[in-house]
Amino acid sequence: MTDPLNHRPSIPLPKSYNDYPFTQIKTQHYEKDPSVIILTLYRPKNNNAFTGTMMLELEKAYAMFDVDDRVRVIVLTGNGRIFCAGADLEIGFQRGGEPANEHRDGGGRVTLAIHHCRKPTIGALQGSAVGIGITMCLPMNIRVAYKKAKIGFVFARRGLVMEACSSFFLPRLIGFSRAMQAITTGSTYLASDPVYDGLFAYTMDRPEDVLPKALEIAEEVSKNTSVVSTYLMKELMYRDTGSAEGQHLLDSRVIYELFQTPDNKEGVESFMQKRPAKFTGTMENTNVMAYPWWNPIDTVVRAKGDPVAKPKM
Amino acid sequence: MTDPLNHRPSIPLPKSYNDYPFTQIKTQHYEKDPSVIILTLYRPKNNNAFTGTMMLELEKAYAMFDVDDRVRVIVLTGNGRIFCAGADLEIGFQRGGEPANEHRDGGGRVTLAIHHCRKPTIGALQGSAVGIGITMCLPMNIRVAYKKAKIGFVFARRGLVMEACSSFFLPRLIGFSRAMQAITTGSTYLASDPVYDGLFAYTMDRPEDVLPKALEIAEEVSKNTSVVSTYLMKELMYRDTGSAEGQHLLDSRVIYELFQTPDNKEGVESFMQKRPAKFTGTMENTNVMAYPWWNPIDTVVRAKGDPVAKPKM
Amino acid sequence: MTDPLNHRPSIPLPKSYNDYPFTQIKTQHYEKDPSVIILTLYRPKNNNAFTGTMMLELEKAYAMFDVDDRVRVIVLTGNGRIFCAGADLEIGFQRGGEPANEHRDGGGRVTLAIHHCRKPTIGALQGSAVGIGITMCLPMNIRVAYKKAKIGFVFARRGLVMEACSSFFLPRLIGFSRAMQAITTGSTYLASDPVYDGLFAYTMDRPEDVLPKALEIAEEVSKNTSVVSTYLMKELMYRDTGSAEGQHLLDSRVIYELFQTPDNKEGVESFMQKRPAKFTGTMENTNVMAYPWWNPIDTVVRAKGDPVAKPKM
Repeated sequence: MTDPLNHRPSIPLPKSYNDYPFTQIKTQHYEKDPSVIILTLYRPKNNNAFTGTMMLELEKAYAMFDVDDRVRVIVLTGNGRIFCAGADLEIGFQRGGEPANEHRDGGGRVTLAIHHCRKPTIGALQGSAVGIGITMCLPMNIRVAYKKAKIGFVFARRGLVMEACSSFFLPRLIGFSRAMQAITTGSTYLASDPVYDGLFAYTMDRPEDVLPKALEIAEEVSKNTSVVSTYLMKELMYRDTGSAEGQHLLDSRVIYELFQTPDNKEGVESFMQKRPAKFTGTMENTNVMAYPWWNPIDTVVRAKGDPVAKPKM
Repeated sequence: MTDPLNHRPSIPLPKSYNDYPFTQIKTQHYEKDPSVIILTLYRPKNNNAFTGTMMLELEKAYAMFDVDDRVRVIVLTGNGRIFCAGADLEIGFQRGGEPANEHRDGGGRVTLAIHHCRKPTIGALQGSAVGIGITMCLPMNIRVAYKKAKIGFVFARRGLVMEACSSFFLPRLIGFSRAMQAITTGSTYLASDPVYDGLFAYTMDRPEDVLPKALEIAEEVSKNTSVVSTYLMKELMYRDTGSAEGQHLLDSRVIYELFQTPDNKEGVESFMQKRPAKFTGTMENTNVMAYPWWNPIDTVVRAKGDPVAKPKM
Repeated sequence: MTDPLNHRPSIPLPKSYNDYPFTQIKTQHYEKDPSVIILTLYRPKNNNAFTGTMMLELEKAYAMFDVDDRVRVIVLTGNGRIFCAGADLEIGFQRGGEPANEHRDGGGRVTLAIHHCRKPTIGALQGSAVGIGITMCLPMNIRVAYKKAKIGFVFARRGLVMEACSSFFLPRLIGFSRAMQAITTGSTYLASDPVYDGLFAYTMDRPEDVLPKALEIAEEVSKNTSVVSTYLMKELMYRDTGSAEGQHLLDSRVIYELFQTPDNKEGVESFMQKRPAKFTGTMENTNVMAYPWWNPIDTVVRAKGDPVAKPKM
């Protein structure tokens, strides 16, 4: 994860993600473009219901993707007919022994892992998604869904509140009017329902069309865009200065620092020469002094100073 | 009203809202589900035009609904062919004797009464709504309208500005692009016009379909959701921390406090047992220490310290 | 430009904009309503590609429109088949000699000139717009486009980031979901593509229908609305207080100050008399003590205190 607070864990990177020993998720390189990783929620007997183990594995996977220059785009999908049935209710909602202000919601840890990863994620919701199943998709760059997938922000029906930072993301993604409808009824709606208008870039007629469409977009992104650009633009939008003038000062500085970098030269040259671009920039090899322009909030270290919520790996 | 500043007036609650002595609004229990209140703007000879009396009655009604555990959802509609024709121009726009900074816009007082009420409101716009007629609908959770109802943010045509906090709500509800179009022309558009896309959850073919649809949603909300959940989620979205990380710290804490509350237990149990839920939680009987997480702004007390804008009841 | 920091240049106003000696833009009065100015990007041999000269001319034009009481609405269009092909790549992206934090993005200077002008702008995109071609349109009040115009936020394909304050405007205009899709792929999409839903008030079947539609709206706005109202409402939305309560205090004060102003009287009277209104209010002749309610950010003066980015005129 992007980690100005230096909590990024050092995990040895594998030669290939094809045989990585995860237990509740699967990773593989897309054959046609190995820089695209297909990440699959994988609990075949449990509708991919979310657990603490799945959380830790997703955190670990994203921590690796974030720093691995071979990875340019992640496509996240689910195994089988359901994308993710939400939190595993057989485990349930239990308080641990920690005080309330030291609890860290597991869904939010995954959401932040995706949000902090400097490579874009494309969601491929081949089936229904409720609770954390859909809230984990909100920080993704693009979402594709089966048009009849049932999508539910069901928290009001469980006596809970929206989690995983979804109260931050949902109204920004689709506006407060639609967000309020979705959370007030707590009902499930089809992915193609107007209440979710804008949430899914594409809704596909058949479940089997979803992953191919997401991979098509992923390949387009991988082959044509600079990860430095996409990452910085995400942050420019989500960490904005709150005024057009403040943003002018900020984007002027950032874009000025990108002028004549290898990715900028390659982007212009390949465009003029009408050929595919070959971008090599990373946040490590590109000097952007203005970054980060916000005050990072440490969500890992607790009051007593010991980092407790770190992925155990 | 939810009132961390302790201005909530103590009003005796009636045995029934069916015969409450309001003069410009009417209240009644929905027969099929008495926890749903039907609130009707009622000035039959004046197209339900907004007045100071209507303002005070709406403030009073919402102050009661807020604290009355028998009330779970409010449906707000208009009498006759027009929902609300806006401010009564026969009374007009007059300055009172107070200094400008002690004036409190009457529309805004109603908007805040709806916004602060801890029970969701569903708008049933069976006819046209202009000016305060539509701006009072913006803090509602869900809006249903007759598709040919004329909706107008007409302020630029009266030499005024948008009021009733609508400059806060409108761009959040439907985005700045549509909001800017609506206020720049000051024209009325049909409820089904693309300029309002997203504002109305449903636009109905016939005026007489509007209230039934709103009541159908109200009953679904009343029967299936926890008012503690819907209220806290509204606040989580409207009073957010401005970053995904800040929201993670906040929602982690709030949801942790809700784990194993009666409403959470009932929500999970009823779901597992595939039966309707029976929620009993209120903000009073549920211990949410993190609430409120924002600094309340007192809009009632004026500079000199005397609360002037209080509803006179 | 509205300029609480007093950098507004004093430019002599011409008798007519019809023959103003610009070189890369053209200005003319709309014959049917001379208070509407048609502003045309004009580089016939270069697809109206954006240059430093075009920037300075747009800044100058908007500085005049802002203070010229004869001007009520601006319609901005492009000459020929393309609206604007983006930055002129033959000039390219070069760093000047200034330090990064003193650079001011040329696109942003134009965007702010449009954003600060107290007269509304309506975009008439008769053809494709990429890069600064589309980002300069974001601060406009209303946009009309040819439905097959290609619109592209192509920055990720050039190794750059979105500029011209577009990371501020774009997610506010169409939501983060659509904005993220557009900037992550960096692809061009048709103006009628769902990714831009909401961005264009109208998408027209034929290029030649675009300017007439924009002019029709401009005339409607010019003839029926107060420029004081439209300007203040834009600022109320973009410079909001961040809470419904704060906005109630603010809009209560602003609207109170507008009660019984000449524009308010004329707006009500003309409405009651069912005749066209004749508004005469300007920010100069209308006393709005609450304005400005935000802390202006000076984007012109640099660290050393000398204003460098001023239009040279």
